[in-house]
Amino acid sequence: MIKNRLMQLREIMKEKAIDVYVIKTSDFHLSEYTGVYFDEREFMSGFTGSAGTLVVTKTKSALFTDGRYFIQAERQLQGTEIQLMKFDVSGVPTIMEYIDESVSENGCVAFDGRTIEAAWGQELQKSLNLKNATIMYDEDCIDRIWTNRPPLSKEPAFLLDIKYAGESVNDKLKRLRSEMSQKKADTHLIATIDDICWLLNIRGNDVEHNPVVLAFAVITMEEVYLFTDEFKFTKEAKNILAVDNIIMKAYEDVYTYIEQLGNVSILIDTERINYSLYKNIPEHVKTVVLENPTVLMKAIKNKTEVENLKAAHVKDGVAVTKFLYWLKENISVSKNITEISASDYLEQCRRAQDGFIELSFNTISAYNANAAMMHYSATDESNAILEPKGMLLVDSGGQYYEGTTDITRTIGLGPVTSQMKKDFTLTLKGMLNLSSAKFLYGCSGLNLDILARGPLWDEGVDYRCGTGHGVGYLLNVHEAPNGFRWKAVAGRNVLCVLEEGMVTSNEPGVYVEGSYGIRIENEIVCKKSQKNEYGQFMEFETLTVAPIDLDLIDTDYLSKKDIERLNKYHQFVYNTISPYLDNQEKTWLKKYTDAI
Amino acid sequence: MIKNRLMQLREIMKEKAIDVYVIKTSDFHLSEYTGVYFDEREFMSGFTGSAGTLVVTKTKSALFTDGRYFIQAERQLQGTEIQLMKFDVSGVPTIMEYIDESVSENGCVAFDGRTIEAAWGQELQKSLNLKNATIMYDEDCIDRIWTNRPPLSKEPAFLLDIKYAGESVNDKLKRLRSEMSQKKADTHLIATIDDICWLLNIRGNDVEHNPVVLAFAVITMEEVYLFTDEFKFTKEAKNILAVDNIIMKAYEDVYTYIEQLGNVSILIDTERINYSLYKNIPEHVKTVVLENPTVLMKAIKNKTEVENLKAAHVKDGVAVTKFLYWLKENISVSKNITEISASDYLEQCRRAQDGFIELSFNTISAYNANAAMMHYSATDESNAILEPKGMLLVDSGGQYYEGTTDITRTIGLGPVTSQMKKDFTLTLKGMLNLSSAKFLYGCSGLNLDILARGPLWDEGVDYRCGTGHGVGYLLNVHEAPNGFRWKAVAGRNVLCVLEEGMVTSNEPGVYVEGSYGIRIENEIVCKKSQKNEYGQFMEFETLTVAPIDLDLIDTDYLSKKDIERLNKYHQFVYNTISPYLDNQEKTWLKKYTDAI
Repeated sequence: MIKNRLMQLREIMKEKAIDVYVIKTSDFHLSEYTGVYFDEREFMSGFTGSAGTLVVTKTKSALFTDGRYFIQAERQLQGTEIQLMKFDVSGVPTIMEYIDESVSENGCVAFDGRTIEAAWGQELQKSLNLKNATIMYDEDCIDRIWTNRPPLSKEPAFLLDIKYAGESVNDKLKRLRSEMSQKKADTHLIATIDDICWLLNIRGNDVEHNPVVLAFAVITMEEVYLFTDEFKFTKEAKNILAVDNIIMKAYEDVYTYIEQLGNVSILIDTERINYSLYKNIPEHVKTVVLENPTVLMKAIKNKTEVENLKAAHVKDGVAVTKFLYWLKENISVSKNITEISASDYLEQCRRAQDGFIELSFNTISAYNANAAMMHYSATDESNAILEPKGMLLVDSGGQYYEGTTDITRTIGLGPVTSQMKKDFTLTLKGMLNLSSAKFLYGCSGLNLDILARGPLWDEGVDYRCGTGHGVGYLLNVHEAPNGFRWKAVAGRNVLCVLEEGMVTSNEPGVYVEGSYGIRIENEIVCKKSQKNEYGQFMEFETLTVAPIDLDLIDTDYLSKKDIERLNKYHQFVYNTISPYLDNQEKTWLKKYTDAI
Repeated sequence: MIKNRLMQLREIMKEKAIDVYVIKTSDFHLSEYTGVYFDEREFMSGFTGSAGTLVVTKTKSALFTDGRYFIQAERQLQGTEIQLMKFDVSGVPTIMEYIDESVSENGCVAFDGRTIEAAWGQELQKSLNLKNATIMYDEDCIDRIWTNRPPLSKEPAFLLDIKYAGESVNDKLKRLRSEMSQKKADTHLIATIDDICWLLNIRGNDVEHNPVVLAFAVITMEEVYLFTDEFKFTKEAKNILAVDNIIMKAYEDVYTYIEQLGNVSILIDTERINYSLYKNIPEHVKTVVLENPTVLMKAIKNKTEVENLKAAHVKDGVAVTKFLYWLKENISVSKNITEISASDYLEQCRRAQDGFIELSFNTISAYNANAAMMHYSATDESNAILEPKGMLLVDSGGQYYEGTTDITRTIGLGPVTSQMKKDFTLTLKGMLNLSSAKFLYGCSGLNLDILARGPLWDEGVDYRCGTGHGVGYLLNVHEAPNGFRWKAVAGRNVLCVLEEGMVTSNEPGVYVEGSYGIRIENEIVCKKSQKNEYGQFMEFETLTVAPIDLDLIDTDYLSKKDIERLNKYHQFVYNTISPYLDNQEKTWLKKYTDAI
């Protein structure tokens, strides 16, 4: 099937004199998670991971992806011609290098410009200039091959009440326009839908797990032009939006609108608008190239959002605790629990919570070796039956009106090896280290990452991903710009200062291919600590409230301080969650949060 | 006196229609430490610290300096009109902001362009453009005021034997020229004298504590033009240099040489050449602006250098240990030991070592409150008498043929407070943490800094400086680009990857104004650790060999791991140093390196 599709693509490439065709995993808004309409890369390669770039040349093809997906991609690409290219592994070419090798003098690279970051397109063009090669970006070649392509989402949208959003659209627009003025821009194009949803306090259902509305927005000093499907909004919603001068326009019209811009100075984020939009900006328009101001504004959760998030995490913690209780109680008596049935049970527990909307991402329920794939997703074929031994890794989260959650627990189902316990304990140590950090204002995640990674690095072990990512508020579960990573990543603001109100995940892990995977993830919110002659100190408060499996801990690897930290956390978990449990669950939780 | 000098300067400024005059602490090579000829900033302000910028306007003046010098500068500026501006303290303007405020439309800012980094001059010009203001850089106005100015150094130079340098000039030039080719440059101007000395294996005595020769160098693909005082070199040395096509030219002639460049492509480091040189480059010359390749080449010590450094540190450790023994034994019986006499004794101990050339910087011998000034230098007036109580901080180092050393020990002279012990112990904990780090190749000092700073941050304490700096090989004690810092600093490559062979100091501390100062400094060399599926792990080996005062440790603040690390280090100190001690010293060292 893949073979046939690649053949069809190569025919089109031949017809149009294209040397290389590039398919990134993206929609028109450069979203990480996308509607099924946008699964071109999966359609063409068979690889289902959430991140990856397929590059097809006349004679070969390659899929580039990151450490989270090495194992999964290897399996899914088996039997195809597509070569797996591992990001950040020495000796592996970059996408640019790979393309460069296959482009002839005066040649042509093509892609659907609506799905490629402007900055990446610019960089590619720069490298192609050396060969006098060009970019063809105005056609989606896959659309011709993908005959039974699903349609774009048409789901309804809604307005988020101020009691959840914590700040009015009017106030947000004021802050944004003041930033625009400061940067000498009178117009601002936003293509990233979570930025738009945050700014206009709207939400929708156009991407599974992300409660967003497909839209573009142009903000001027007086109006907001919202390019979206008008039918998604109720009349009432439109009236309310109109109060803030938000004017609806058809979704597709953004391209012609940009083409017809007058003498304006437009603020654009070339990492966050697509290449087609960028190319449509007339030459006479002055561009101010900067990160969308909404990126930072949105990342800094306001007091209302933080308070709501705490409530959401209590609900989420109750659901996870009930799930853990059920699993621990039933694993030795039931022979019918599978990865999928376990995640279904967990979903049920979440659905029982008030204010729950949907899962914030596809639950990762991965038993033993499956868990070595960081972002494994159980399928009917892979679905493992859980036995009373080894470990189950469950990474899951919910979308509540009170915010978005993301939590991972690794659960001992019975006997485990001492190596597993050691790895679990070192992972825990790192997670606790980072959550307990105290640091001067001005630190970025780059400064702090080693607190989580250090206990594993000491043993010559690493996890091939960041330690944590920002989390949205009833928005995307992965949200820029805050995060914990040790390495600079192109296009990411790795030196982003940790600000009060930023919510970040803290999720170190150990992944042993073919054997097991461990991850422990809490979400933490940054807040001010003491201020003295040395400056403003910052610290974290943990939002996630669920027990960490004591069965997997080997106290030999914990210091006195580590143990105090764990006991304190478990005390907090018990006090917070127990009021929502029945007596049996309560007794169980008491035992699993007891001081060690 | 200062008043009078500022008055004279303002007269000159009036005469030449200068709004603002800027004096940085620099020579023509942008060296950190400079010959006395270059002490213009000290001459004009009275501030003797090693770093600071004086800005004089028509009506006011300000001295900008960093955290190491806040206390000292405050004292030394007392009674003058000069306002102290603390770098990195909120609310304090930057130098650029301060200048901008005082320049009128079409105004003029002046400085001696030979003492200002090209990059800084460019940045200033950019900000002045908004006011249509200009820079006058071709006159040294202070020279007219400073009538009894000392002359430029005329000290002899020498060639460093390959047994010390570890790599021939020919090989170094080959590597450099290959880098130049790769960057499409056929000519390279080097103005930084440590880069030149390293490249050509020459040393001299033109700057106290830095065994360097005042020189500029232009490297072409065939020749090296060395602009220096020819009389500093013996005939034999010149003959040897000539073998590698190194051609001597007069020191001052570099400016006209650059002015007359033909159609070349010149590699320049605008952070490392002065503004006058930069302005002298003809318009037709293609410039390749990059960090001097020698910066990284020099920072990565070769095997010979590392082996030699280990030998130098043994000598240095013997000297420091003998000094510590003498101090501890005599402090309660002698009433005549002062900060200066103590540092003199230490210098004697160093001079007794074979291969010792000179101190690598002015010894900091600071008792109690004096030690709160990070870079205090005892004067006849400040010279404190040491009593058998409190703490003495001694930061010192030597230049040996086998390399440069830098070590700090804080020594208990008798009873100390429990707070002092706590601060000392937390400082020690951080120092040991960082020295024991294991990390993946690719980490920079920015990733690791928190290991040293963390134990203090946990208590809401900080030190207002980096944790460590690179150290030269029989060169400058402060050497770029490696270092440990948590904050990005303009003009510094804070993300510089730690490479095998880089030598860095590790020197956390606590500074309590008016009370005491603590610093513990070891030098550590980066080396490869295990390589496995996760990548190349790196670690440090400690070069410094001298006991850390057990009298100042409160074990309540140390974990089991900390104690193991300390004991292991002390075992190494005893084994390494004791063979060079007499019996009494040996017995003393045994006691002070015993396991705790």
